[in-house]
Amino acid sequence: MRIAVVAPSCPLTREAAGTVEAIVAERGDCELSIHPQCFLADGHFAGPDEARLAALREVMADTSVDAIWFARGGYGSNRIAEAALVDLPEAARGKTYMGYSDAGFLLAGLHKAGLDAAWGPMPQDVLRDGGDTAVHRALNWLVLRDTSALEPHLQDPAMAFNLTVLSNLLGTPLEPDFTGVDLLIEDVSEHLYRIDRTMFHVAASATIRKVACLRLGRVNGVVPNDVEFGTDEVAIVADWCARAGIEFGGRADIGHDARNRVVPFARH
Amino acid sequence: MRIAVVAPSCPLTREAAGTVEAIVAERGDCELSIHPQCFLADGHFAGPDEARLAALREVMADTSVDAIWFARGGYGSNRIAEAALVDLPEAARGKTYMGYSDAGFLLAGLHKAGLDAAWGPMPQDVLRDGGDTAVHRALNWLVLRDTSALEPHLQDPAMAFNLTVLSNLLGTPLEPDFTGVDLLIEDVSEHLYRIDRTMFHVAASATIRKVACLRLGRVNGVVPNDVEFGTDEVAIVADWCARAGIEFGGRADIGHDARNRVVPFARH
Repeated sequence: MRIAVVAPSCPLTREAAGTVEAIVAERGDCELSIHPQCFLADGHFAGPDEARLAALREVMADTSVDAIWFARGGYGSNRIAEAALVDLPEAARGKTYMGYSDAGFLLAGLHKAGLDAAWGPMPQDVLRDGGDTAVHRALNWLVLRDTSALEPHLQDPAMAFNLTVLSNLLGTPLEPDFTGVDLLIEDVSEHLYRIDRTMFHVAASATIRKVACLRLGRVNGVVPNDVEFGTDEVAIVADWCARAGIEFGGRADIGHDARNRVVPFARH
Repeated sequence: MRIAVVAPSCPLTREAAGTVEAIVAERGDCELSIHPQCFLADGHFAGPDEARLAALREVMADTSVDAIWFARGGYGSNRIAEAALVDLPEAARGKTYMGYSDAGFLLAGLHKAGLDAAWGPMPQDVLRDGGDTAVHRALNWLVLRDTSALEPHLQDPAMAFNLTVLSNLLGTPLEPDFTGVDLLIEDVSEHLYRIDRTMFHVAASATIRKVACLRLGRVNGVVPNDVEFGTDEVAIVADWCARAGIEFGGRADIGHDARNRVVPFARH
């Protein structure tokens, strides 16, 4: 099992890379190939669009690569996602693509193109409290298809997205078909009024209204309102689901933290 | 000319209300009726949804009211906009509706329903530096149809939106037809990476791609990125316009400040 790491959004830190390489060496059940593009920096991004796209296209076309693991989130994968999916090489199929947060733009497009996308922890997560567990969980899915890595209440088919990313991919060429999907959402570092506004937008979408149910992961690091918003994220999501006729399925075990579980988009 | 003030988003302050009332008294060319709902508070909002909706519906149906002026932005008009437009009373027609920022959700829906919506300064703006000028500008349009209040390079038909609000109303029942429109956008208190992500979303919209051109107002109070984003708001908007085949028309004289000009959505 050979896993290639590329960074379509923000750069991977050397510290995270070294720690993950040590974990992989100790496991001995896979080989990790961290693309040098992961360490580029161009303003906010892990190198310019061209470099991030070229690295991704390179590992997608590499027949020796079994899985592609996105290094970290941040922002930027949407800038290259459409181009990454043009004239897909045959070798791009049969690989698993894993990441979350901003990588959701790519997961959506890859899944829509028929490739095997999965929400799950990323290499940069190793620096979180308990991050080694998160990295093992991701590898346990990629290498061993260990079902204990999965979000425990998944109903096939399932998808998971950062809510803000989901909102921003609706109506774009990356938007997948949500019909019948167990849709898991989470968010991080947002004001509750933004969560409410984003749920208004997402719940109005005709395709989102076709999900089997919507479940809420953790909303971490809520930014305080200058006036208390007056309700919480569970009430917000349940309210917009009720207004839109979407089944609210309760909580989900995903989020921007080390406990984040794996959600394969393909049936498993 | 009788102008009713209601607050579909956040509460109006007593200080702003008093200052605007004094300006109106001094002008002597119109009558201002500040609805008591403007001073309600329910968490983040100027009263619960029901109270904000009821006040808006009341002044829409009031035949003695010639114009409806939204008190301030913040967040919340989207929560009542659809309901405000159901079974429109005949008296709702022939009035001008003015506001900006979060009120854009209402302006979009009102314009779509054939009513006379206009982007322009709001009562709460009076507390900004130079805010009395902004309030006079709004009143000069509402009362006198003074064209010097208008954004100086408008091409009929025109619309103006806060970019984040625009992004969140796409795909909802509030989305108007942008075909052939001189579309002005602005934003406030956002990170540049968010402006970039929102432009990705907006520029991908099939209906936005039908605008005559897109022009950029001021992007005030940009929140610093932890890493410099590496470009600015003009380059960001021009870039997404170029990618999407949208004509970028340069700058526009609107923004979250006292210089904010009026943009009538109806032909003028």
